[in-house]
Amino acid sequence: MSEVVLPEQQVERGVPGKPIVLVVMDGLGGLPHPDTGRTELETARTPNMDALAARGSLGMTVMVKEGITPGSGPGHLSLFGYDPTRYVIGRGALSALGVGIELEAGDVAARLNLATFDDQGRVSDRRAGRPSDADAARVVERVQKAVEAPEGVEVKFIPEKEHRVVLHLRGPGLGGAAISDTDPLETGRTALPVQALDAGSKATATVVAGILDQTRRILADEPRMNGFLARGFAAFERIPSMDERFGLKGLAIAKYPMYRGAARLVGMQIPGVPKSTEDTVTLLEKSWGKADLYFLHFKDTDTKGHDGDFAGKVSAIEEVDALIPRINALRPEVIIITGDHSTPAIYKEHSWHHVPALLASPWARPTGAEFGESACRAGDLGVIHATDLMPLALAHAGRLVKYGA
Amino acid sequence: MSEVVLPEQQVERGVPGKPIVLVVMDGLGGLPHPDTGRTELETARTPNMDALAARGSLGMTVMVKEGITPGSGPGHLSLFGYDPTRYVIGRGALSALGVGIELEAGDVAARLNLATFDDQGRVSDRRAGRPSDADAARVVERVQKAVEAPEGVEVKFIPEKEHRVVLHLRGPGLGGAAISDTDPLETGRTALPVQALDAGSKATATVVAGILDQTRRILADEPRMNGFLARGFAAFERIPSMDERFGLKGLAIAKYPMYRGAARLVGMQIPGVPKSTEDTVTLLEKSWGKADLYFLHFKDTDTKGHDGDFAGKVSAIEEVDALIPRINALRPEVIIITGDHSTPAIYKEHSWHHVPALLASPWARPTGAEFGESACRAGDLGVIHATDLMPLALAHAGRLVKYGA
Repeated sequence: MSEVVLPEQQVERGVPGKPIVLVVMDGLGGLPHPDTGRTELETARTPNMDALAARGSLGMTVMVKEGITPGSGPGHLSLFGYDPTRYVIGRGALSALGVGIELEAGDVAARLNLATFDDQGRVSDRRAGRPSDADAARVVERVQKAVEAPEGVEVKFIPEKEHRVVLHLRGPGLGGAAISDTDPLETGRTALPVQALDAGSKATATVVAGILDQTRRILADEPRMNGFLARGFAAFERIPSMDERFGLKGLAIAKYPMYRGAARLVGMQIPGVPKSTEDTVTLLEKSWGKADLYFLHFKDTDTKGHDGDFAGKVSAIEEVDALIPRINALRPEVIIITGDHSTPAIYKEHSWHHVPALLASPWARPTGAEFGESACRAGDLGVIHATDLMPLALAHAGRLVKYGA
Repeated sequence: MSEVVLPEQQVERGVPGKPIVLVVMDGLGGLPHPDTGRTELETARTPNMDALAARGSLGMTVMVKEGITPGSGPGHLSLFGYDPTRYVIGRGALSALGVGIELEAGDVAARLNLATFDDQGRVSDRRAGRPSDADAARVVERVQKAVEAPEGVEVKFIPEKEHRVVLHLRGPGLGGAAISDTDPLETGRTALPVQALDAGSKATATVVAGILDQTRRILADEPRMNGFLARGFAAFERIPSMDERFGLKGLAIAKYPMYRGAARLVGMQIPGVPKSTEDTVTLLEKSWGKADLYFLHFKDTDTKGHDGDFAGKVSAIEEVDALIPRINALRPEVIIITGDHSTPAIYKEHSWHHVPALLASPWARPTGAEFGESACRAGDLGVIHATDLMPLALAHAGRLVKYGA
């Protein structure tokens, strides 16, 4: 009595074929447009997704808990079947994994933003005017060459994208990584001090504070990119892979490093970096046959949501819809289409609202031929936790055995 | 790793404005009338609540667990965001808080009913003919004056309402309060013996048995109110306030003491006692600006449900509906309208059925312009635990931060 049944205890290993495709449109969930009462997804013309809905089961998902707005890391962990309240991964670690760093247990990582500081040390631009990747890389190289690593610590700065940089620390001179962010989140204020949030993180905090001081001196003559703001400090602990847990070899295709990082964290392979939305599917076609689970990440839906661009988010959804026939042509056993959280265009931020989900398979219970919040609300799956999607995909792909006799 | 994420860990403190109003119609949930197929709430004409539904998210709530019928205490704790299986508060403690007793840790309280006993000691009326408040107060005063407190124990009898009395015990002579009820729940039987349900509660049981014996002797010459039945013994343990957990200063307006008690337990202030249903909103208007969360309790829905008075419950709902425009006029950011449990008029008791819930805010996902069980069943929130309503209210009021990056 009173044992928890985990899906991984029911996994049948060595099942051939029957691939699963997980399509994530970042920030997919929306809120109704005031004029039409229809969300972004309900407004978009999505004939291909609607056809999948006609042979799929629909539902709404809770990513973390009711009322809790997920960051992208927790949202993706949930979709991969990992309870994000149990597997807590800092943004820094996700970014480090995303840029290809082979993190080891005990490593500390943080997300840095190149920023502009004025003469009084106040932040005048939190993103240093969004530099090009090349400009940022030049400045990061300057810092990497000049920085003096403290005793017993390796220090690496790796450019991520535009103003985004990863700080990666390794060595016996470190402790925990419970360290407060230095980003004041608004301009006109100085960076916040680096503070250890527990006793075990004091050594790391001292190391980080010293490094950030050095970077301000090294970059003092740069007009725009003259310092860093840091957030999302994390010490890395290895977590079990999807292969270990679910018998699934995963493969991730994502343009942005953080999502590749989330995928790498759970053991997915990364066949390359797509250059465009369309290229994501081209890379899928090239990689077909190499994995059991193919995770495709599309970012534009979230970006347009943050911009408050309702029509833009609609277009981003339609752009993904147009690629569905090429995914279908590969004949996956199961296709899931969903988001990692909601980013309603009228709200302009990540939100806590349920996320629509579609699971197409020969064993679905269809409820209609439309993919949208209203249809998903009335779908066969009901409102489920997003961590249940992966076990459902496994079940639909014949990869779970019966529980009990 | 492996921390449970509680909504309170995501609370942003010091958020100004954006007040939340929680309207509780006691026992709101109903069952269909056999002639019409419509519940009490679906039968009631509720144009104002329907208008809120049109800009709100609807759902159904589970108060404790599926199949479990909640008492008013657990029901309200759930609505306040407290898991009632974790925070177990006896009816006695709720009543004691409700009549304004400043309970201290270790105090024991119980709910007493004035009752009528016949010559053989059998209960002939479990509520002593529902005496007036004044009649009950006279008898309670007699008891208080004559009772001899055992060594090391303070004994207080406080009239609550009609036949309801609170017994409050304090002192080193007490132990635990795991004590069985003495109410036989039907007439024609003698009171049940006072029994300790664990070893640590034996001292308290002995004290209580002695006191109840004394009251029978003191009141022997009273024709109707000649003894007490006791239930809901509870030792009081302080629980964290809503301010501590959610950053919410609460204010409660409730005609009946027990609901003020539940509110006081979680740290709400009590601005006064409304004299009528309408006066509840008048007191809200006078108190506006003093809190973040305003809890309004309306009792008649439950009373009419217990009476089996379907039409009366419908009227009680309509009476509350008529007050909604005055609540709207205060411009709360979030309005929740729900119940603490179901009391279907055809069932005449509290029941385990899901309770309809409406959450109106600028960030809702409306699904129609009707507030009722059928509409809530098809609502955007799905079937959720009632403890999730408070985190949802916090999210809609912009009082929770993102979880993870």
